[in-house]
Amino acid sequence: MTAVIGVDFGTLSARAVVARIEDGAELGTGERAYSHGVIQEELPGGVPLGPEWALEHPNDWLDALRAAVHVALADAGIDPQEIIGLGIDTTASTPLPILADGTPLCLLPEFADRPHAWPKLWKHHAAQPQADRINETARTTGQPWLARYGGLISSEWQFAKALQVFEEDREVFDRIDHWVECGDWLVQQLTGRLVRGVSVNGYKGIVQDGSLPSEEYLEALAPGFSAILPLLDGERLPQAARVGGLLPSFAERLGLPEGIAVAVGNVDAHVTAASVGSVDAGSMLAIMGTSTCHVMNGVELAEVDGMCGVVDGGIVEGRWGYEAGQSGVGDILAWYVDQQVPPRVHEAANRAGMSIHEYLTELAWQRPVGAHGLVALDWHGGNRSVLVDTRLSGLLVGATLATKPEDVYRALVEATAFGARVIVETFNDAGVRVERFFAAGGLLRNQQLMQTYADVLRMPITVAESEQAPALGSAIHAAVAAGAYPDIVAAAEAMGSARVDAYVPNATRADVYDEMFADYLLLHDRFGRGEDLLMHRLKARRDGALL
Amino acid sequence: MTAVIGVDFGTLSARAVVARIEDGAELGTGERAYSHGVIQEELPGGVPLGPEWALEHPNDWLDALRAAVHVALADAGIDPQEIIGLGIDTTASTPLPILADGTPLCLLPEFADRPHAWPKLWKHHAAQPQADRINETARTTGQPWLARYGGLISSEWQFAKALQVFEEDREVFDRIDHWVECGDWLVQQLTGRLVRGVSVNGYKGIVQDGSLPSEEYLEALAPGFSAILPLLDGERLPQAARVGGLLPSFAERLGLPEGIAVAVGNVDAHVTAASVGSVDAGSMLAIMGTSTCHVMNGVELAEVDGMCGVVDGGIVEGRWGYEAGQSGVGDILAWYVDQQVPPRVHEAANRAGMSIHEYLTELAWQRPVGAHGLVALDWHGGNRSVLVDTRLSGLLVGATLATKPEDVYRALVEATAFGARVIVETFNDAGVRVERFFAAGGLLRNQQLMQTYADVLRMPITVAESEQAPALGSAIHAAVAAGAYPDIVAAAEAMGSARVDAYVPNATRADVYDEMFADYLLLHDRFGRGEDLLMHRLKARRDGALL
Repeated sequence: MTAVIGVDFGTLSARAVVARIEDGAELGTGERAYSHGVIQEELPGGVPLGPEWALEHPNDWLDALRAAVHVALADAGIDPQEIIGLGIDTTASTPLPILADGTPLCLLPEFADRPHAWPKLWKHHAAQPQADRINETARTTGQPWLARYGGLISSEWQFAKALQVFEEDREVFDRIDHWVECGDWLVQQLTGRLVRGVSVNGYKGIVQDGSLPSEEYLEALAPGFSAILPLLDGERLPQAARVGGLLPSFAERLGLPEGIAVAVGNVDAHVTAASVGSVDAGSMLAIMGTSTCHVMNGVELAEVDGMCGVVDGGIVEGRWGYEAGQSGVGDILAWYVDQQVPPRVHEAANRAGMSIHEYLTELAWQRPVGAHGLVALDWHGGNRSVLVDTRLSGLLVGATLATKPEDVYRALVEATAFGARVIVETFNDAGVRVERFFAAGGLLRNQQLMQTYADVLRMPITVAESEQAPALGSAIHAAVAAGAYPDIVAAAEAMGSARVDAYVPNATRADVYDEMFADYLLLHDRFGRGEDLLMHRLKARRDGALL
Repeated sequence: MTAVIGVDFGTLSARAVVARIEDGAELGTGERAYSHGVIQEELPGGVPLGPEWALEHPNDWLDALRAAVHVALADAGIDPQEIIGLGIDTTASTPLPILADGTPLCLLPEFADRPHAWPKLWKHHAAQPQADRINETARTTGQPWLARYGGLISSEWQFAKALQVFEEDREVFDRIDHWVECGDWLVQQLTGRLVRGVSVNGYKGIVQDGSLPSEEYLEALAPGFSAILPLLDGERLPQAARVGGLLPSFAERLGLPEGIAVAVGNVDAHVTAASVGSVDAGSMLAIMGTSTCHVMNGVELAEVDGMCGVVDGGIVEGRWGYEAGQSGVGDILAWYVDQQVPPRVHEAANRAGMSIHEYLTELAWQRPVGAHGLVALDWHGGNRSVLVDTRLSGLLVGATLATKPEDVYRALVEATAFGARVIVETFNDAGVRVERFFAAGGLLRNQQLMQTYADVLRMPITVAESEQAPALGSAIHAAVAAGAYPDIVAAAEAMGSARVDAYVPNATRADVYDEMFADYLLLHDRFGRGEDLLMHRLKARRDGALL
């Protein structure tokens, strides 16, 4: 009985890690991409989707779970009987409508061609009108929970997405038995028990002080919409709680022992705090991938402008867990490489045996800070913190006829670093001081990017040792659920690992970045705040043209 | 004696047209690209150039002249003895320093590695600090000519470029015998006589009412700089005047008869007015290529904000010729295609047998107006009219993770159309009413682009029939110089040709473009006017970083 397994369900793939309980050593890893990836243009059956839609296929998660676990077990080379616990984490909010027996509505033939029957991925941004009314009604009726979410509920979350179903496809809505986050659904599949994790339902589902929004509020929002309340039933469990034992059917499918502890579902960002040891007050962890999520613990409850949320015990029990985020980071760089990089760069990168990202990075950082003459806003996927506005969009100023692809690439990287600095400064201003900065996630492999964050933030950055930090975090949670450690802090101490102060700011570069950050802030406030929002008009015109 | 020949020296190549005197029919054409193209990164000998530099090689012009004329003559298949005149037009302002015998300084071995010895192409933008002081001093000392240039002298013109030489390389400056526009230099080569054309020296050289700027002004600008005045000597000749006969050496090199009439050098844009018949008051002609130049005649002298200039007889004798322009149009699209279009688009265009421009255009215009959700500023090469500011730069707002290359391409095309509308509206507001809109130049081959201009301007557009409209215009001027017609208006009537109202605005699209134009104007004024100019800061930071 020496190991646990953690599985991290990302936007495009699932990653599994087999970890030794004693010290967190990674014995084996496995990964499997989702067959359908992100479903954005049309459903598998060909039904077209509108702008800003983003769905996933629930069978992709189960298939990738099996494949990733099998690969990780083979990689570890241990007897599966040595494994005593399984933990999972997922993107959030990625809710789906299911029947009482757990069947996703989208798998029923009569609903397969109904977009609203499908799981809505975190970056589904088509529920913005609903989010606007959720916020407006919460403000006018003085809902006490609004301040816990920085004053704004995001269109990415459970209620906006549920309200969109309610308003746009009532037939689907009326067939829902449970409206459930994908992590809670996966745990239900594994254990047969539907519970609600404190983290995902606190941050994404407006569960505060043990309660959901009131019936009166939901009726004021949309008459009849209080019908969502019974769809959100299920016991709420704290972080790392044991939900139940692994069902025989899944034990067989995954090649794991029957009955081993399955931990409550968690959010990919929050679970990662355990794997890098960012569990103290004042430690902020950025999980930098497709998007970036920032999580930190505080001893006091505070209101941080534009944060995603604060939840009692949201990361570890007994502390207030804060969350903030950037909607697009790696996503923006991937978009740029895919859509805006010419053949000669592809050819040169191939010749050099580098990825496009590596090649552009090498070229771009040969020049001094500011030499590209550009400044960008990193809102191609909207802005999560601190503006909480999915109708914002990307901006690039300063292009000339001499601007090269690597110049724009660097400007986009810098824009995401400036976006991170806005979040850190907002926390500081609210009295939740960011004393230490941790980082994990796929972007760690870009050392120039990480150094730029250190320079822009003027803070050293401690980075995850593990390349699968979320999955390792889920394994740590599994160890707690299996009773190997008394709590997450103790398990993180034993099993977590990080490279302390791996990046240290350079004062000369930081001085120039300070100036550039001032320009970024100017654009941030000009385009992101105020009465007359050009970016909103552009998206409204686009949507009108495509009607 | 039935034909004349016109040669148009563009930014990248020379084009020759042999035209029948009777009706302007194009008997033959020829083109030759410049071997060195635009010299931007380093001199031929390897000496690096700074940001915003753009030079050309004088031998390229002579080589391309010979090759283009030979091809055109062969294409025409007529006896060269039938040709009675030669006219040329060039980009402007493209001045160079020469010795008394006409030798360009850059061809002397001791000056070959000195950047300031080379011809400065129109889009050399490195003399902006000099232009700023030219304007500031003109304002404070109340120079009467300043209003004739919309209140601002451009860094693209003769004096800013000469002052840059004076301040940055005095040794070069002290060796100059004549500071001369490339068109006047070419005519000197062909005839042995150095004269100054009314058009290029009026618009680009601040010759107004027969005078150059005063010695007092130039000394106030920079002590010692009045030494430029004798370097600008030479008789000033009106449009289409005969400078002299073709020298034997050049007659032999070009394969043309000795002694045929050579017309005074002209500007590519202004000479084109003759070839499309845009010679009446109220007719504006846009020559749309790498950049766009707008020329129109008026009966009265008026002050148009941000125009490039107004010159008595600048286009045809007896009328006030107005000029305005857009620094980058085709240039921006070419930059975009070169730097920002991914391999799959190249591959798809190849498969379809289309150019990248054609392919992106076909894709982009399949969608309704506004569907891309973007708005751009077309200032990648600075803004000539109406802001006259080379330190401005490009801007793109509205990019999302769903933005495709064709979306950005269309937004850039639209931005140039909005830029043209700003110019038209500024002329209208100044009382110089634009009643008819003509177009010529390489961009005419993009029909969607032309239709977009008609929609955005809400005006029908009459287009040049000739694909070599500037060269045909030079041939028309040659016919006048040779005495075949009494003046340009008569020659244009006989030899010019255009397709009337080839594009007519569509009201539905124009309504959406009106809304988008309002957004463009908002950005135009936000980023182009005012005290705190972000784009200036970005370029200053770039230049500082590269020091």
